[in-house]
Amino acid sequence: MSSSRSKVVQIYKHGFVDSVDDSVAVEEPLQITLDGCPIAVVMRTPCDDADLVKGFLLTEGILTDIDAVSRIDLEQKLNHALVFLKDDVEIDYQRLQRNLYSASSCGICGKATIESIRQEHPEITSTHQVSSSVLLAIPDTLRAAQKTFGETGGLHAAGLFSLDGDLLVLCEDVGRHNAIDKIIGWAATNAVDFSKVLMQVSGRVSFEVMQKAHAVGIPIISAISAPTSLAVDFAEESGQTLIGFLRPPRFNCYAGSQRLS
Amino acid sequence: MSSSRSKVVQIYKHGFVDSVDDSVAVEEPLQITLDGCPIAVVMRTPCDDADLVKGFLLTEGILTDIDAVSRIDLEQKLNHALVFLKDDVEIDYQRLQRNLYSASSCGICGKATIESIRQEHPEITSTHQVSSSVLLAIPDTLRAAQKTFGETGGLHAAGLFSLDGDLLVLCEDVGRHNAIDKIIGWAATNAVDFSKVLMQVSGRVSFEVMQKAHAVGIPIISAISAPTSLAVDFAEESGQTLIGFLRPPRFNCYAGSQRLS
Repeated sequence: MSSSRSKVVQIYKHGFVDSVDDSVAVEEPLQITLDGCPIAVVMRTPCDDADLVKGFLLTEGILTDIDAVSRIDLEQKLNHALVFLKDDVEIDYQRLQRNLYSASSCGICGKATIESIRQEHPEITSTHQVSSSVLLAIPDTLRAAQKTFGETGGLHAAGLFSLDGDLLVLCEDVGRHNAIDKIIGWAATNAVDFSKVLMQVSGRVSFEVMQKAHAVGIPIISAISAPTSLAVDFAEESGQTLIGFLRPPRFNCYAGSQRLS
Repeated sequence: MSSSRSKVVQIYKHGFVDSVDDSVAVEEPLQITLDGCPIAVVMRTPCDDADLVKGFLLTEGILTDIDAVSRIDLEQKLNHALVFLKDDVEIDYQRLQRNLYSASSCGICGKATIESIRQEHPEITSTHQVSSSVLLAIPDTLRAAQKTFGETGGLHAAGLFSLDGDLLVLCEDVGRHNAIDKIIGWAATNAVDFSKVLMQVSGRVSFEVMQKAHAVGIPIISAISAPTSLAVDFAEESGQTLIGFLRPPRFNCYAGSQRLS
């Protein structure tokens, strides 16, 4: 599996045309089936699929504990992930359907209603702090660790950092949400304490980015670009710290500044 | 309705903190109800809602002709769009459900299957061409016309251009797909001949961007950033022209170069 693919493109420059071998980011569907029930198709970059699936199950509120998963069979050629839960785990499929519908940032959700996207937001009470010098070093660390972006220019990145600024995990994907699900899936598998991490994303911050971080209790979210109004509102309601425009030597704090030391 | 909202943010710069009034792009849910049946919630920037709804119905394959719509009642405070079809229009709600599921770039679709995203792609046969000088002028035209981006940095833009380079319509939204739906809804209302236009998007090009353009027969799609592998495959199968990295003095052509004059 590779996250980029070679493609002959025609480059037009100053009136001349050149055919060159270029790289494009790979986008392929992945069907997720839970104990025999197909629950979702995600359009993703095929790498870290097991982490993606685990993260998806956690951030969409389908599972609250990753230990509920017995095993995940990846049929790579078929783009199919078969998730098997432990015997004693019960899934409320009605709630599953409601939760999946509720997270529709792209609006693709049959029978969705406004009420379904307004979930309860238990407040995040983590009192851990991050210093501005740690924050300001994050973009450089993330860029240095990004492999495929340089090649294709087509991938979103998300990273988890310790509050001392150490990069714990970085994942890339054509889909912003998938990159987040991948790092959260990895962290859950590796028993990372989410109350002591910072999540950094490469682009903008929408409502759903905040909701996914909130599902596992991440207190601090930072981004290279702007947040939306609903992301700011969500952060304030949920007690999360939201940093935007993290572009050294500056950044903006939109909510939760008590976690900045 | 405004596409941006004022928000007091704390700006950290060179070790100093300043509280200033900043703008954030507005993100709010819009529930779309079709003849009494709630079919989707889109997270959108509240402007051009009627165009957004019309474009959504067309690009998701729910309607093939915008004349089927009798009227759209917008209940702005409730973020609710009530669509009423003409008496003689029949909707296949089973097909509707399948189509909505099929377009899940974010993976939020209960019971989706891989097969459902592979639709038939009738080939686009438009023989109209665009010159490279017209293409190279597009980013400047689009930027000059973008209002809110300068303020918030948080919006995607999409524009439709004539093949002579005239800007027909520009829309902005926190969601890339919504900006596309808005311009397509506007163009359908104004009886624009889609076989003679070019669609420009501010960011990257995924499979779903191509599919939305294809639904109404747009032959040429260009973007500031990179396409994904599946976007390139789709363009080749559907006979669309796909331009990426449109950054004067250069651009890349990934498919359909016969439309470049």
